[in-house]
Amino acid sequence: MPLKDMLSDVIAGVEGALSVMVMASDGVAVAEVTADGAAFDLQLISVEYATVLKEIRRTVEVIHAGELEEVCVTTDRLRAIMRALNDELFAVLILSREGNIGMGRHRLHLKSFELARELT
Amino acid sequence: MPLKDMLSDVIAGVEGALSVMVMASDGVAVAEVTADGAAFDLQLISVEYATVLKEIRRTVEVIHAGELEEVCVTTDRLRAIMRALNDELFAVLILSREGNIGMGRHRLHLKSFELARELT
Repeated sequence: MPLKDMLSDVIAGVEGALSVMVMASDGVAVAEVTADGAAFDLQLISVEYATVLKEIRRTVEVIHAGELEEVCVTTDRLRAIMRALNDELFAVLILSREGNIGMGRHRLHLKSFELARELT
Repeated sequence: MPLKDMLSDVIAGVEGALSVMVMASDGVAVAEVTADGAAFDLQLISVEYATVLKEIRRTVEVIHAGELEEVCVTTDRLRAIMRALNDELFAVLILSREGNIGMGRHRLHLKSFELARELT
C-alpha cells in the first residue's frame, strides 16, 4: 500500500483527526495527509515537536526509562500523538481538542508497524 | 482532605501506579506518594520531566496551540502522565509499562481540580 494511503487510513478512522504525517527526527516531513478543511501550519508544528521529542529522548535516557515509544500532548486547542517508528522517524497524528484520542492512539499504534516496515 | 491523602487516592484506584506527585515547574516536589515496593529515583524523574514540560510549554506557544493541559510519555519501561494544575504547578503520575493509562489519566484529571484548589 502506498505511504499516503496508509496515512489516509489512519485519519479516516479517527473522529476529529486533522492531519497525520511521518517526519524525521529533525522535523522534516517524509509524507503527510491533511483532512479537508484543516488549516494550520503543519511544517511549523513538525519542526517544533521534533525539538520536544529530542528533549524527551534525552530525558528518558537520563532517567533510565528505556526506549521512547509514544508522546501525547493535549492543549486547550489541539491534541498531538507522536509515535517512534525507529531511531530516526516518528509518526505524528494531530487531532482537534474534541478528537477521539483513544481511537487515535489505537490506530496510530496499529499502523506504526506497517509504516516502519515500509520505511526501513 | 490533606494533600498526601488526595495523592494516595489517585494511585489507589489505578492499576500499575507507582508514584504520584505535585511538583513546581522547576521540578522540585511539593508533595509525593510512592506505592509500596516502587524503587526509582523520583527526584531525578521530576527534575528531568520539568525540563521537558518547559520545552513543551514553549512549543505550544510558538505553534499557537493554546494552553498546555496534559502530556503523556510512554517508554518500554514506564508511563508518565503530567497535568498542568496552574502556571506554576504540575501533577505527575508514574505507572509501570503495563499500568492502566486510561484510568490514570481519568483519575489525575478528576483530582487535578481539587489539587489546584488546595494549592492556590
